[in-house]
Amino acid sequence: MKLLVIGGTGTIGSSVVKELSSRHEVLIAGASKSPLKCDIGAEDSIRALFEKIGKVDGVIITVGKVHFEELTTMDGAKYLLGLNHKLMGQVRVVMLGTPFLKDGGSFTLTSGILNHDPIRTGTSAAMVNGAIEGFVTSAAMELPRGIRINVVSPTILVEAPPEYASIFRGFKPVPAADVALAYSKSVEGIQTGKIYKVGY
Amino acid sequence: MKLLVIGGTGTIGSSVVKELSSRHEVLIAGASKSPLKCDIGAEDSIRALFEKIGKVDGVIITVGKVHFEELTTMDGAKYLLGLNHKLMGQVRVVMLGTPFLKDGGSFTLTSGILNHDPIRTGTSAAMVNGAIEGFVTSAAMELPRGIRINVVSPTILVEAPPEYASIFRGFKPVPAADVALAYSKSVEGIQTGKIYKVGY
Repeated sequence: MKLLVIGGTGTIGSSVVKELSSRHEVLIAGASKSPLKCDIGAEDSIRALFEKIGKVDGVIITVGKVHFEELTTMDGAKYLLGLNHKLMGQVRVVMLGTPFLKDGGSFTLTSGILNHDPIRTGTSAAMVNGAIEGFVTSAAMELPRGIRINVVSPTILVEAPPEYASIFRGFKPVPAADVALAYSKSVEGIQTGKIYKVGY
Repeated sequence: MKLLVIGGTGTIGSSVVKELSSRHEVLIAGASKSPLKCDIGAEDSIRALFEKIGKVDGVIITVGKVHFEELTTMDGAKYLLGLNHKLMGQVRVVMLGTPFLKDGGSFTLTSGILNHDPIRTGTSAAMVNGAIEGFVTSAAMELPRGIRINVVSPTILVEAPPEYASIFRGFKPVPAADVALAYSKSVEGIQTGKIYKVGY
Protein backbone atom coordinates (compact mmCIF):
# COMPACT_ATOMS: atom_id res chain seq x y z
CA MET A 1 0.00 0.00 0.00
CA LYS A 2 0.96 3.64 -0.47
CA LEU A 3 0.36 5.40 2.84
CA LEU A 4 0.60 9.01 3.99
CA VAL A 5 1.50 9.84 7.62
CA ILE A 6 0.89 13.51 8.48
CA GLY A 7 2.96 14.12 11.59
CA GLY A 8 5.29 11.28 10.69
CA THR A 9 8.30 12.72 12.55
CA GLY A 10 6.50 13.12 15.89
CA THR A 11 6.60 10.67 18.80
CA ILE A 12 3.56 8.69 17.67
CA GLY A 13 4.07 9.34 13.97
CA SER A 14 7.63 8.04 13.82
CA SER A 15 6.55 4.90 15.63
CA VAL A 16 3.73 4.42 13.12
CA VAL A 17 6.18 4.90 10.23
CA LYS A 18 8.50 2.30 11.80
CA GLU A 19 5.61 -0.18 12.17
CA LEU A 20 4.30 0.23 8.62
CA SER A 21 7.33 0.98 6.45
CA SER A 22 8.63 -2.60 6.31
CA ARG A 23 5.42 -3.67 4.53
CA HIS A 24 4.32 -0.52 2.70
CA GLU A 25 5.46 2.63 0.90
CA VAL A 26 5.13 5.36 3.55
CA LEU A 27 5.15 9.08 2.74
CA ILE A 28 5.98 11.35 5.67
CA ALA A 29 4.45 14.83 5.90
CA GLY A 30 4.45 17.48 8.59
CA ALA A 31 4.63 21.19 9.35
CA SER A 32 8.40 21.52 9.72
CA LYS A 33 10.78 18.54 9.85
CA SER A 34 9.12 16.21 7.33
CA PRO A 35 10.18 15.75 3.69
CA LEU A 36 6.64 16.68 2.56
CA LYS A 37 5.25 19.92 3.99
CA CYS A 38 1.73 20.03 5.43
CA ASP A 39 0.14 22.16 8.13
CA ILE A 40 -3.30 20.73 8.87
CA GLY A 41 -4.36 24.16 10.16
CA ALA A 42 -4.38 25.48 6.57
CA GLU A 43 -6.62 24.16 3.77
CA ASP A 44 -4.22 25.27 1.03
CA SER A 45 -1.39 23.32 2.63
CA ILE A 46 -3.45 20.11 2.73
CA ARG A 47 -4.69 20.57 -0.84
CA ALA A 48 -1.15 21.16 -2.13
CA LEU A 49 0.08 18.01 -0.42
CA PHE A 50 -2.57 15.77 -1.98
CA GLU A 51 -2.08 17.31 -5.43
CA LYS A 52 1.62 16.57 -5.12
CA ILE A 53 1.40 12.95 -3.95
CA GLY A 54 -1.73 11.81 -5.83
CA LYS A 55 -3.79 8.76 -4.92
CA VAL A 56 -3.03 6.84 -1.73
CA ASP A 57 -4.40 3.77 0.07
CA GLY A 58 -4.38 5.26 3.53
CA VAL A 59 -3.97 8.55 5.38
CA ILE A 60 -2.84 8.67 9.00
CA ILE A 61 -2.83 11.89 11.00
CA THR A 62 -0.79 12.05 14.21
CA VAL A 63 -0.69 15.80 14.81
CA GLY A 64 -2.98 18.36 16.41
CA LYS A 65 -2.49 21.36 18.68
CA VAL A 66 -4.61 22.06 21.75
CA HIS A 67 -4.30 24.68 24.49
CA PHE A 68 -3.90 23.43 28.08
CA GLU A 69 -5.07 25.74 30.87
CA GLU A 70 -7.28 25.62 33.96
CA LEU A 71 -10.99 25.86 33.18
CA THR A 72 -11.62 29.05 35.13
CA THR A 73 -9.18 31.11 33.05
CA MET A 74 -9.94 29.55 29.64
CA ASP A 75 -11.76 31.72 27.11
CA GLY A 76 -13.26 31.31 23.66
CA ALA A 77 -10.05 32.18 21.82
CA LYS A 78 -8.08 29.57 23.75
CA TYR A 79 -10.61 26.85 22.87
CA LEU A 80 -10.35 27.89 19.21
CA LEU A 81 -6.79 26.56 18.84
CA GLY A 82 -7.87 22.98 19.44
CA LEU A 83 -11.10 23.35 17.47
CA ASN A 84 -9.28 24.80 14.46
CA HIS A 85 -6.14 22.67 14.58
CA LYS A 86 -6.51 19.26 16.22
CA LEU A 87 -10.22 18.89 15.38
CA MET A 88 -10.90 20.73 12.11
CA GLY A 89 -7.34 20.15 10.89
CA GLN A 90 -7.98 16.40 10.90
CA VAL A 91 -11.51 16.86 9.52
CA ARG A 92 -10.10 19.03 6.71
CA VAL A 93 -7.70 16.23 5.79
CA VAL A 94 -10.69 13.88 5.52
CA MET A 95 -12.74 16.33 3.43
CA LEU A 96 -9.91 17.30 1.07
CA GLY A 97 -8.30 13.87 1.03
CA THR A 98 -11.37 11.76 0.21
CA PRO A 99 -11.06 12.29 -3.58
CA PHE A 100 -7.41 11.18 -3.35
CA LEU A 101 -8.16 7.98 -1.45
CA LYS A 102 -8.43 4.78 -3.45
CA ASP A 103 -11.60 2.68 -3.13
CA GLY A 104 -11.54 0.86 0.20
CA GLY A 105 -8.80 3.12 1.54
CA SER A 106 -8.69 4.39 5.10
CA PHE A 107 -8.32 7.46 7.25
CA THR A 108 -6.90 7.06 10.75
CA LEU A 109 -7.20 10.05 13.07
CA THR A 110 -5.78 10.68 16.54
CA SER A 111 -7.67 11.79 19.66
CA GLY A 112 -6.52 10.92 23.21
CA ILE A 113 -7.58 9.75 26.66
CA LEU A 114 -8.63 13.06 28.22
CA ASN A 115 -12.35 13.00 27.42
CA HIS A 116 -12.57 9.63 29.17
CA ASP A 117 -10.11 10.26 32.00
CA PRO A 118 -9.81 14.02 32.59
CA ILE A 119 -6.94 16.01 34.10
CA ARG A 120 -6.69 19.62 35.33
CA THR A 121 -6.09 21.98 32.35
CA GLY A 122 -7.54 19.41 29.95
CA THR A 123 -11.02 20.74 29.08
CA SER A 124 -10.04 21.81 25.56
CA ALA A 125 -8.35 18.47 24.84
CA ALA A 126 -11.40 16.64 26.23
CA MET A 127 -13.71 18.72 24.04
CA VAL A 128 -11.64 18.12 20.91
CA ASN A 129 -11.16 14.39 21.54
CA GLY A 130 -14.91 13.94 22.03
CA ALA A 131 -15.58 15.88 18.83
CA ILE A 132 -13.15 13.73 16.82
CA GLU A 133 -14.75 10.54 18.16
CA GLY A 134 -18.24 11.80 17.31
CA PHE A 135 -17.15 12.82 13.83
CA VAL A 136 -15.45 9.49 13.11
CA THR A 137 -18.41 7.47 14.41
CA SER A 138 -20.72 9.33 12.05
CA ALA A 139 -18.42 9.87 9.03
CA ALA A 140 -17.68 6.13 8.88
CA MET A 141 -21.32 5.58 7.86
CA GLU A 142 -21.22 8.19 5.08
CA LEU A 143 -17.81 7.91 3.42
CA PRO A 144 -18.14 6.78 -0.23
CA ARG A 145 -16.45 3.93 -2.17
CA GLY A 146 -15.81 1.70 0.84
CA ILE A 147 -13.46 4.23 2.40
CA ARG A 148 -13.01 3.52 6.11
CA ILE A 149 -12.22 5.83 9.05
CA ASN A 150 -11.08 5.09 12.61
CA VAL A 151 -9.49 7.02 15.46
CA VAL A 152 -6.70 6.04 17.83
CA SER A 153 -7.07 7.33 21.40
CA PRO A 154 -3.82 6.73 23.31
CA THR A 155 -3.03 7.44 26.93
CA ILE A 156 0.24 9.18 27.85
CA LEU A 157 3.33 7.72 26.15
CA VAL A 158 6.46 6.27 27.69
CA GLU A 159 8.36 8.50 25.24
CA ALA A 160 6.49 11.73 26.21
CA PRO A 161 8.59 14.72 27.33
CA PRO A 162 9.38 14.53 31.09
CA GLU A 163 7.41 17.73 31.83
CA TYR A 164 4.19 15.80 31.06
CA ALA A 165 4.70 13.60 34.14
CA SER A 166 3.41 16.17 36.63
CA ILE A 167 0.08 16.66 34.88
CA PHE A 168 -0.46 12.94 34.23
CA ARG A 169 0.25 11.55 37.72
CA GLY A 170 -1.13 8.05 38.13
CA PHE A 171 -1.49 7.42 34.40
CA LYS A 172 0.40 4.29 33.32
CA PRO A 173 2.38 5.26 30.21
CA VAL A 174 2.19 3.09 27.10
CA PRO A 175 5.08 2.54 24.64
CA ALA A 176 4.63 4.36 21.31
CA ALA A 177 5.21 1.00 19.59
CA ASP A 178 1.99 -0.31 21.19
CA VAL A 179 0.10 2.77 19.99
CA ALA A 180 1.46 2.17 16.49
CA LEU A 181 -0.24 -1.24 16.43
CA ALA A 182 -3.65 0.43 16.60
CA TYR A 183 -2.83 2.43 13.46
CA SER A 184 -1.76 -0.80 11.80
CA LYS A 185 -5.08 -2.42 12.72
CA SER A 186 -6.95 0.56 11.29
CA VAL A 187 -4.98 0.70 8.02
CA GLU A 188 -4.42 -3.01 7.39
CA GLY A 189 -7.67 -4.37 8.85
CA ILE A 190 -11.29 -4.08 7.76
CA GLN A 191 -12.87 -2.10 10.59
CA THR A 192 -14.52 1.31 10.34
CA GLY A 193 -16.02 3.79 12.82
CA LYS A 194 -13.89 2.39 15.64
CA ILE A 195 -12.29 4.24 18.55
CA TYR A 196 -9.09 2.34 19.43
CA LYS A 197 -8.28 3.09 23.06
CA VAL A 198 -4.62 2.21 23.70
CA GLY A 199 -3.24 1.79 27.20
CA TYR A 200 -6.50 2.34 29.07
CA MET B 1 -34.15 27.43 43.72
CA LYS B 2 -33.79 30.23 41.19
CA LEU B 3 -33.18 28.60 37.80
CA LEU B 4 -32.42 29.95 34.33
CA VAL B 5 -33.52 28.05 31.22
CA ILE B 6 -31.91 29.35 28.03
CA GLY B 7 -34.10 28.08 25.22
CA GLY B 8 -37.07 27.85 27.57
CA THR B 9 -39.70 28.29 24.84
CA GLY B 10 -38.40 25.45 22.62
CA THR B 11 -39.73 21.89 22.54
CA ILE B 12 -37.37 20.58 25.20
CA GLY B 13 -37.06 23.88 27.06
CA SER B 14 -40.80 24.38 27.58
CA SER B 15 -41.08 20.84 28.89
CA VAL B 16 -38.21 21.51 31.32
CA VAL B 17 -39.91 24.72 32.47
CA LYS B 18 -43.16 22.81 33.03
CA GLU B 19 -41.33 20.14 35.07
CA LEU B 20 -39.41 22.57 37.27
CA SER B 21 -41.69 25.61 37.69
CA SER B 22 -44.02 24.03 40.25
CA ARG B 23 -41.12 23.68 42.68
CA HIS B 24 -38.77 26.53 41.69
CA GLU B 25 -38.54 30.08 40.37
CA VAL B 26 -37.76 29.60 36.65
CA LEU B 27 -36.46 32.40 34.43
CA ILE B 28 -36.93 31.82 30.70
CA ALA B 29 -34.41 33.20 28.20
CA GLY B 30 -33.97 32.76 24.46
CA ALA B 31 -33.07 34.44 21.20
CA SER B 32 -36.52 35.57 20.14
CA LYS B 33 -39.74 34.50 21.92
CA SER B 34 -38.55 34.46 25.53
CA PRO B 35 -39.14 37.24 28.11
CA LEU B 36 -35.35 37.47 28.67
CA LYS B 37 -33.22 37.87 25.52
CA CYS B 38 -30.12 35.72 25.05
CA ASP B 39 -28.34 34.46 21.94
CA ILE B 40 -25.71 31.94 23.05
CA GLY B 41 -23.80 32.67 19.82
CA ALA B 42 -22.82 36.10 21.19
CA GLU B 43 -20.74 36.67 24.35
CA ASP B 44 -22.21 40.13 24.94
CA SER B 45 -25.71 38.73 24.92
CA ILE B 46 -24.86 36.09 27.55
CA ARG B 47 -23.00 38.59 29.72
CA ALA B 48 -25.91 41.07 29.60
CA LEU B 49 -28.35 38.33 30.63
CA PHE B 50 -26.36 37.32 33.72
CA GLU B 51 -25.80 40.94 34.74
CA LYS B 52 -29.55 41.49 34.53
CA ILE B 53 -30.68 38.42 36.50
CA GLY B 54 -27.85 38.13 39.04
CA LYS B 55 -27.05 34.99 41.02
CA VAL B 56 -28.86 31.74 40.24
CA ASP B 57 -28.85 28.16 41.55
CA GLY B 58 -28.90 26.48 38.18
CA VAL B 59 -28.50 27.18 34.47
CA ILE B 60 -30.08 24.91 31.85
CA ILE B 61 -29.33 25.33 28.14
CA THR B 62 -31.68 23.71 25.63
CA VAL B 63 -30.64 25.50 22.43
CA GLY B 64 -27.92 25.05 19.84
CA LYS B 65 -27.76 25.30 16.06
CA VAL B 66 -26.00 22.74 13.85
CA HIS B 67 -25.86 22.35 10.07
CA PHE B 68 -27.19 19.07 8.60
CA GLU B 69 -25.76 17.98 5.24
CA GLU B 70 -24.21 14.91 3.64
CA LEU B 71 -20.56 14.41 4.54
CA THR B 72 -19.23 14.63 0.99
CA THR B 73 -20.53 18.18 0.45
CA MET B 74 -19.80 19.56 3.93
CA ASP B 75 -17.00 22.12 4.26
CA GLY B 76 -15.22 23.95 7.05
CA ALA B 77 -17.65 26.86 7.12
CA LYS B 78 -20.65 24.54 7.51
CA TYR B 79 -19.03 22.77 10.47
CA LEU B 80 -18.38 26.18 12.06
CA LEU B 81 -22.07 26.84 12.73
CA GLY B 82 -22.32 23.93 15.15
CA LEU B 83 -18.89 24.58 16.67
CA ASN B 84 -19.66 28.25 17.27
CA HIS B 85 -23.30 27.92 18.32
CA LYS B 86 -24.31 24.58 19.83
CA LEU B 87 -20.83 23.80 21.20
CA MET B 88 -19.11 27.07 22.08
CA GLY B 89 -22.45 28.80 22.77
CA GLN B 90 -23.06 26.38 25.64
CA VAL B 91 -19.40 26.53 26.74
CA ARG B 92 -19.59 30.34 26.75
CA VAL B 93 -22.60 30.17 29.06
CA VAL B 94 -20.54 28.01 31.44
CA MET B 95 -17.52 30.33 31.29
CA LEU B 96 -19.48 33.58 31.68
CA GLY B 97 -22.09 32.10 34.01
CA THR B 98 -19.79 30.49 36.59
CA PRO B 99 -19.33 33.72 38.62
CA PHE B 100 -23.14 34.08 38.74
CA LEU B 101 -23.75 30.55 39.99
CA LYS B 102 -24.23 30.07 43.72
CA ASP B 103 -22.00 27.57 45.55
CA GLY B 104 -23.15 24.05 44.70
CA GLY B 105 -25.19 25.27 41.74
CA SER B 106 -25.41 23.42 38.45
CA PHE B 107 -25.09 23.74 34.70
CA THR B 108 -27.08 21.36 32.50
CA LEU B 109 -26.18 21.30 28.81
CA THR B 110 -27.82 19.55 25.87
CA SER B 111 -26.17 17.27 23.31
CA GLY B 112 -28.06 14.51 21.43
CA ILE B 113 -27.98 10.92 20.23
CA LEU B 114 -26.16 11.34 16.91
CA ASN B 115 -22.59 10.71 18.05
CA HIS B 116 -23.74 7.37 19.44
CA ASP B 117 -26.28 6.43 16.75
CA PRO B 118 -25.41 8.29 13.52
CA ILE B 119 -27.68 9.27 10.62
CA ARG B 120 -26.92 10.56 7.12
CA THR B 121 -26.27 14.36 7.22
CA GLY B 122 -25.37 14.15 10.91
CA THR B 123 -21.57 14.44 11.02
CA SER B 124 -21.60 18.00 12.37
CA ALA B 125 -24.15 17.12 15.06
CA ALA B 126 -22.11 14.03 15.97
CA MET B 127 -18.94 16.12 16.22
CA VAL B 128 -20.60 18.77 18.39
CA ASN B 129 -22.35 16.27 20.66
CA GLY B 130 -19.08 14.42 21.26
CA ALA B 131 -17.34 17.72 22.01
CA ILE B 132 -19.99 18.74 24.54
CA GLU B 133 -19.75 15.36 26.28
CA GLY B 134 -15.95 15.60 26.42
CA PHE B 135 -16.10 19.12 27.77
CA VAL B 136 -18.66 18.26 30.46
CA THR B 137 -16.75 15.14 31.57
CA SER B 138 -13.64 17.25 32.07
CA ALA B 139 -15.14 20.54 33.29
CA ALA B 140 -17.03 18.70 36.05
CA MET B 141 -13.66 17.96 37.68
CA GLU B 142 -12.48 21.59 37.54
CA LEU B 143 -15.50 23.77 38.31
CA PRO B 144 -15.01 25.70 41.59
CA ARG B 145 -17.22 26.01 44.71
CA GLY B 146 -19.00 22.68 44.31
CA ILE B 147 -20.60 23.77 41.05
CA ARG B 148 -21.82 20.76 39.08
CA ILE B 149 -22.25 20.18 35.34
CA ASN B 150 -24.09 17.48 33.39
CA VAL B 151 -25.37 17.01 29.84
CA VAL B 152 -28.66 15.58 28.61
CA SER B 153 -28.44 13.57 25.38
CA PRO B 154 -31.95 12.86 24.08
CA THR B 155 -33.02 10.83 21.08
CA ILE B 156 -35.64 12.23 18.69
CA LEU B 157 -38.75 13.65 20.42
CA VAL B 158 -42.39 12.67 20.00
CA GLU B 159 -43.06 16.42 19.64
CA ALA B 160 -40.40 16.98 16.91
CA PRO B 161 -41.57 18.58 13.65
CA PRO B 162 -42.93 15.94 11.22
CA GLU B 163 -40.17 16.61 8.67
CA TYR B 164 -37.67 15.03 11.08
CA ALA B 165 -39.31 11.61 10.65
CA SER B 166 -37.67 10.84 7.30
CA ILE B 167 -34.11 11.35 8.57
CA PHE B 168 -34.73 9.48 11.85
CA ARG B 169 -36.37 6.30 10.49
CA GLY B 170 -36.29 3.50 13.02
CA PHE B 171 -35.60 5.78 15.98
CA LYS B 172 -38.22 5.37 18.72
CA PRO B 173 -39.29 8.88 19.74
CA VAL B 174 -39.34 9.85 23.40
CA PRO B 175 -41.83 12.30 24.97
CA ALA B 176 -40.33 15.68 25.88
CA ALA B 177 -41.69 15.18 29.39
CA ASP B 178 -39.36 12.18 29.81
CA VAL B 179 -36.41 14.26 28.60
CA ALA B 180 -37.34 16.95 31.12
CA LEU B 181 -36.85 14.45 33.95
CA ALA B 182 -33.14 14.19 33.11
CA TYR B 183 -32.78 17.96 33.55
CA SER B 184 -34.59 17.65 36.89
CA LYS B 185 -32.16 14.94 37.99
CA SER B 186 -29.22 17.12 37.00
CA VAL B 187 -30.52 20.27 38.72
CA GLU B 188 -32.15 18.76 41.80
CA GLY B 189 -29.77 15.81 42.33
CA ILE B 190 -26.15 15.62 43.41
CA GLN B 191 -24.45 14.17 40.33
CA THR B 192 -21.76 15.81 38.20
CA GLY B 193 -19.94 14.95 34.98
CA LYS B 194 -22.82 12.73 33.84
CA ILE B 195 -24.16 12.17 30.34
CA TYR B 196 -27.88 11.45 30.68
CA LYS B 197 -28.95 9.45 27.63
CA VAL B 198 -32.73 9.64 27.30
CA GLY B 199 -34.70 7.27 25.12
CA TYR B 200 -31.75 5.10 24.02
